[in-house]
Amino acid sequence: MSSTAETLSTPVIDLRSDTVTKPTAAMRAAMADAEVGDDVYGEDPTVNRLEARAAELFGREAAIFVPTGSMGNQIAIKLHTQPGQEIICDARGHIVDWEMAMVSAFSGCHLRTVPGDRGVLQWEQIKAAIAPKLYYRAQTGLISLENSHNMAGGTVTPLEVYEEIWNGARDAGIPVHLDGARVFNAATALGINVATLTSGFQSVMFCLSKGLCAPVGSILVGSRRFIERARSVRKMLGGGMRQAGILAAAGLIALEEMPQRLHEDHANARLLAEGLAAIPGIEIDLTAVQTNIVIFRLRGVADVAPVLAKLKQKGVLAGAAAADQIRFVTHHDISREACEHALAISIETFTAS
Amino acid sequence: MSSTAETLSTPVIDLRSDTVTKPTAAMRAAMADAEVGDDVYGEDPTVNRLEARAAELFGREAAIFVPTGSMGNQIAIKLHTQPGQEIICDARGHIVDWEMAMVSAFSGCHLRTVPGDRGVLQWEQIKAAIAPKLYYRAQTGLISLENSHNMAGGTVTPLEVYEEIWNGARDAGIPVHLDGARVFNAATALGINVATLTSGFQSVMFCLSKGLCAPVGSILVGSRRFIERARSVRKMLGGGMRQAGILAAAGLIALEEMPQRLHEDHANARLLAEGLAAIPGIEIDLTAVQTNIVIFRLRGVADVAPVLAKLKQKGVLAGAAAADQIRFVTHHDISREACEHALAISIETFTAS
Amino acid sequence: MSSTAETLSTPVIDLRSDTVTKPTAAMRAAMADAEVGDDVYGEDPTVNRLEARAAELFGREAAIFVPTGSMGNQIAIKLHTQPGQEIICDARGHIVDWEMAMVSAFSGCHLRTVPGDRGVLQWEQIKAAIAPKLYYRAQTGLISLENSHNMAGGTVTPLEVYEEIWNGARDAGIPVHLDGARVFNAATALGINVATLTSGFQSVMFCLSKGLCAPVGSILVGSRRFIERARSVRKMLGGGMRQAGILAAAGLIALEEMPQRLHEDHANARLLAEGLAAIPGIEIDLTAVQTNIVIFRLRGVADVAPVLAKLKQKGVLAGAAAADQIRFVTHHDISREACEHALAISIETFTAS
Amino acid sequence: MSSTAETLSTPVIDLRSDTVTKPTAAMRAAMADAEVGDDVYGEDPTVNRLEARAAELFGREAAIFVPTGSMGNQIAIKLHTQPGQEIICDARGHIVDWEMAMVSAFSGCHLRTVPGDRGVLQWEQIKAAIAPKLYYRAQTGLISLENSHNMAGGTVTPLEVYEEIWNGARDAGIPVHLDGARVFNAATALGINVATLTSGFQSVMFCLSKGLCAPVGSILVGSRRFIERARSVRKMLGGGMRQAGILAAAGLIALEEMPQRLHEDHANARLLAEGLAAIPGIEIDLTAVQTNIVIFRLRGVADVAPVLAKLKQKGVLAGAAAADQIRFVTHHDISREACEHALAISIETFTAS
Repeated sequence: MSSTAETLSTPVIDLRSDTVTKPTAAMRAAMADAEVGDDVYGEDPTVNRLEARAAELFGREAAIFVPTGSMGNQIAIKLHTQPGQEIICDARGHIVDWEMAMVSAFSGCHLRTVPGDRGVLQWEQIKAAIAPKLYYRAQTGLISLENSHNMAGGTVTPLEVYEEIWNGARDAGIPVHLDGARVFNAATALGINVATLTSGFQSVMFCLSKGLCAPVGSILVGSRRFIERARSVRKMLGGGMRQAGILAAAGLIALEEMPQRLHEDHANARLLAEGLAAIPGIEIDLTAVQTNIVIFRLRGVADVAPVLAKLKQKGVLAGAAAADQIRFVTHHDISREACEHALAISIETFTAS
Repeated sequence: MSSTAETLSTPVIDLRSDTVTKPTAAMRAAMADAEVGDDVYGEDPTVNRLEARAAELFGREAAIFVPTGSMGNQIAIKLHTQPGQEIICDARGHIVDWEMAMVSAFSGCHLRTVPGDRGVLQWEQIKAAIAPKLYYRAQTGLISLENSHNMAGGTVTPLEVYEEIWNGARDAGIPVHLDGARVFNAATALGINVATLTSGFQSVMFCLSKGLCAPVGSILVGSRRFIERARSVRKMLGGGMRQAGILAAAGLIALEEMPQRLHEDHANARLLAEGLAAIPGIEIDLTAVQTNIVIFRLRGVADVAPVLAKLKQKGVLAGAAAADQIRFVTHHDISREACEHALAISIETFTAS
Repeated sequence: MSSTAETLSTPVIDLRSDTVTKPTAAMRAAMADAEVGDDVYGEDPTVNRLEARAAELFGREAAIFVPTGSMGNQIAIKLHTQPGQEIICDARGHIVDWEMAMVSAFSGCHLRTVPGDRGVLQWEQIKAAIAPKLYYRAQTGLISLENSHNMAGGTVTPLEVYEEIWNGARDAGIPVHLDGARVFNAATALGINVATLTSGFQSVMFCLSKGLCAPVGSILVGSRRFIERARSVRKMLGGGMRQAGILAAAGLIALEEMPQRLHEDHANARLLAEGLAAIPGIEIDLTAVQTNIVIFRLRGVADVAPVLAKLKQKGVLAGAAAADQIRFVTHHDISREACEHALAISIETFTAS
Repeated sequence: MSSTAETLSTPVIDLRSDTVTKPTAAMRAAMADAEVGDDVYGEDPTVNRLEARAAELFGREAAIFVPTGSMGNQIAIKLHTQPGQEIICDARGHIVDWEMAMVSAFSGCHLRTVPGDRGVLQWEQIKAAIAPKLYYRAQTGLISLENSHNMAGGTVTPLEVYEEIWNGARDAGIPVHLDGARVFNAATALGINVATLTSGFQSVMFCLSKGLCAPVGSILVGSRRFIERARSVRKMLGGGMRQAGILAAAGLIALEEMPQRLHEDHANARLLAEGLAAIPGIEIDLTAVQTNIVIFRLRGVADVAPVLAKLKQKGVLAGAAAADQIRFVTHHDISREACEHALAISIETFTAS
């Protein structure tokens, strides 16, 4: 069989990230038919419906649609803080590594990072990181958490941990924001709804793309006043799109129909993780595989780049969570069969090397 | 006749802005069928096609798709400047009044505004505004121009004026950026192509929305190195969308098919302007009506808000360019008949008041 | 007579600025004897005395010592505003031209400049510059005024003008700051005390250097809470000096003993101005010579640099207020005789050229 | 004997910091006699002499006088970086904890902190923290080190460690700045001169206050071009003082005469440290006591505040390096006898508690 034929018969299995998910047929149809208006004037009916629905699902007064999760986080951070303050967060948070130093460059705040346990921060750790009340010390302006935690491998912080943090932060007079890019994955893993899981945060950002498959878009929820102010910051950042109802139409489907299938991605990740764990030389913490992300090491391999290249040659795309860590992310466009195939290729590749 | 029937028979004529244009049927179809990928990884084929085509049309090495014109401008400004510098621009530029002080808040630069003549700045004025070379003076880092000029009424700067500015700025070692949100309107009015009109700018931003009807999106063009750096700043601002090919599909149609019909909007604006000029009590500078924007005053009316309300009651939406100025903007969704109707309503309203 | 001998016999008359004043003998003695402590800990007794005395003189709760007037202004601006706001000020204000775009680079605010009449802004002008209440417009966060007005030629804004502004700004909910670098000159010209002249400002900065002769230092006054917060911003800017009592000792003398002699500088400026006005070809607005600054033009001279060079050869140092404007500033180190001599040299120089 | 009498006879021993040092008699005399000019115009002869001498001592082209070490560091950081970059430094660096988040608020950079061993970072650690070359990652713009290291207890990084870092950083194209607030202490401990110890840094800041006893002032050294640009940033920050020669006069004495006596402070710190080590219940790392700082814990004491209060009652002022750490800093104004006395009081206090 020629390699061309093989390419045709074996499409690429893209496990790099759930950001690669493509819009579903229903989303495409909805986008084509979307009723739109000028959202800068607040006149896009589809955007308005999406924002209302998101607020309702999270039990909040209001919501705002933004083009990316990064923008949603940065708007929230800007609104909660003053330049010259500190923000406490996990050392491997998305806002630390993947948001282009915008916490500094736009909000003028210092990230005081605390090493979480698999992405989970406890109130005691946070409390110890709050700045002393001295006029010549930068003061703590915000606590920012992430659930599920991307770089820690999709790990989930349970409600009890948050309850303690919400109480402590409230007593300390410090707001708490949730980067919930994958909060539906977290809620699925915990078996509770997102409103319950996030009720004590002053603001929550979540993504309609990623596991929920919308092509573009995230949502920030909070109080009415907070979201009003968020509209100004979104405009500052150049996120005031016009006929955004096109995107919101897909977002509505993402919000209504996709969360209930995330358990499939989690089961697929579990399949991969357990299969990998059985391979000699693979180092993997199975207890950390809680949602749709699987991170592992190859014993003795300090740089996984050549291994990723081999996988790619065989049609499996994967990412590196660190120089010595491979990351697989399951999602809507990866079926159980594709996972089984990817596992087979992984076994073949890792045992050969 | 019931009011419902009346609403049905007399649809609103929205002359507030060309930002309200809705995607065409062809655009909707293209969006539904768009081939997409993860544009953060550079893998969205439709975005890549749009960027390549835009670069080609403007005679540039590269282009980048951004969600809004404001983001495009702010990326360019960030890349051309250092915090603590000055930017010379017209006193009524879009970056002065409508970009949320982001020149200051994100780029840390001071806008040194110069009063243009109907939005047109001459090199001599710019030259006089360049900061003296003193270490204790903020230095001039950029000249930013706008064509057509929104707040001046869609006025157009001709090529000869730019040639002098390009030469002078080059000798002074200062880059020049064009806010070309409506550069296709300018080029149409001048009867030259956009590549010729913009060849001496270090960067150009233009919008696919507004007169070109795409629902969302603008483009920044420049050198390959500049656009590479622009990708980082777009990510900073939260503009790194994932399956943006949905939007780019509409953008491609906007770019290929819509510029050639802008002369219709200009003719419609002319129709409105000349009709208004014939009304006693209307103050209008017909020589300033050069593209699709018509700005006028009602003699003795210091606050046009009540007049706008009356127009709205009669089905004509218009905006205020200043407290005492009414602005009509023609666009794709306003037919010649609609303009004639809007003019009739205007005559009725203004002569009555 | 040799040029060396001539240099010895005719010392330079430095009319460039009152920033060149040197500390008096009394100041030097006070600095040598100053009781000091660590001012970052609030333990410098001389600094504390100076701050208390300044607050008392301005009828305020508190004051803070800062190394420069620019730092004092920038601290106040930072405290009154949020990034992304606008600040209304005169088009030729010190914060526009001489503070290094720090309003943008540090506070992230846009300066909305209004052309004052000889540096005097009226409430009506300010009111017209306040941003409309739209979420997609940068909002006005501060009004910043200057008295006496440096670049307008030391002109003075009278109390009545301020009273109208204070009332209007209070109703609009916008704080008003005074750059009072030379507020003692203004108060002297108006014949009222500084507390009266500044009572309605939310904060006032004034300089101990310049006309008051201290070698280094300015003061910011305001409410107790405002000044507490100012200590944090001063620390941010690197202005938290340790044994600053050395400088404060000179500052106390500047504050107590020097304001009462400023009328001499004003009389000297008047002498110069009237003498210059009598020279054919000199264009000077005598009504604008209200304190210690004299600005004039030489008819037909677009660039005063060569003229300044000639004056310098003859022992008179002067500055340029603009390319075609010469500026003389009188101060403590320029006696009446020196002014008469400078005038004679000016006559000789300007009539020859 | 009454407590009042005792207070008179036993003056306070202030071991909180070497920032409390007061100017010597020679410094006071020099300040009273200092020849001064307007340093903004570069005309203060004493400042010019100090800057020339500092440049010479550090083997550099140029130097600039600044009011504080924080300002010196922040100027250097601003000049070396772009907003949106990362700066690698030790997790307990002065710029992390004590410079008011200005790395973020002014330079817009993220501090990527690495835990050093007693304040000493190795090249391998730094290398691992350099950002991967991805357009969607904030890039590393600077490495900033500190010697001696304040919060680590005055520990010293030896030349060999720096040589490796200088080489690695040069290959990586990343500049390296030294916060040398106490670099003369470090050089004294190592027995080499400051020029040798700092030759590979792109810029060095050091303080004339602290151990060198000047009342106010620090110096930043670097290339001629770097220092020229530093003058602009100093002006931005409000550090452009006028007759700063008053302070520079003390600074010259600090620079010429005080470094050679720092070994006395180190010997005194040693005395304290060894005395403390002999007390049961005191936890101290004697190997970390390398200069004039002594940090220790009291076994079982989580909050040292009450202990500090007891010491204060007995006339010994000390600081907290952390909630559970006491810090003693020796300096010019603390004689050997005072140290012995402070040790006696410590023994009495700690064994009683």
